[in-house]
Amino acid sequence: MSADPVKSGDLLADVPARLDKEETAVLAELPGARIERIVSTGQASPPGFWYDQDWTEWFVVLSGSAGVRIEGEEKPRILAPGGYLEIPPRVRHRVDWTDADEPTVWLAVHAK
Amino acid sequence: MSADPVKSGDLLADVPARLDKEETAVLAELPGARIERIVSTGQASPPGFWYDQDWTEWFVVLSGSAGVRIEGEEKPRILAPGGYLEIPPRVRHRVDWTDADEPTVWLAVHAK
Repeated sequence: MSADPVKSGDLLADVPARLDKEETAVLAELPGARIERIVSTGQASPPGFWYDQDWTEWFVVLSGSAGVRIEGEEKPRILAPGGYLEIPPRVRHRVDWTDADEPTVWLAVHAK
Repeated sequence: MSADPVKSGDLLADVPARLDKEETAVLAELPGARIERIVSTGQASPPGFWYDQDWTEWFVVLSGSAGVRIEGEEKPRILAPGGYLEIPPRVRHRVDWTDADEPTVWLAVHAK
């Protein structure tokens, strides 16, 4: 038997209901992108913390909900299931809140 | 007003219930990957057709269901919501069937 060249999985399986901190799992390392599943259960970015990345990040919320603040905007952008954002390099952003009642599952694509 | 540097959208919005052929929408063109939403309403690959691609393709089913056949395997791999596959270059595959009762929404990442 040779190894299966096709990788498979279920990104809605084994979603923890409660976490001390966000859980990140790498689903795929492609030549030009890394695909991750992130699960949040009420976590937010620390006060005053901003992500400031040198890659484009694309992410979508698949369950739960979240408020993502873009620097310079007054209010967070609210993401419900299906909602996605594409954040260019150097656009500072933070997670103001994630759903306190059910897990928020994110699919994130980090362009390389 | 300058253009919004952050692109946003809802990949579960405006899902057509019935299509004559699959609908593909490019959600993002990142430096290393193209992200697409594909909606199928019962479509399959034509008889005898195989995708034979020179890039890695990663895709997940978000609603509906599908049977994806990998060349050399006896049965299709059945994808329900959350199910994903990572198909390396040159691994021939086809869509044997998609859900006839509800739209199948795929999120596909083409590595560049």
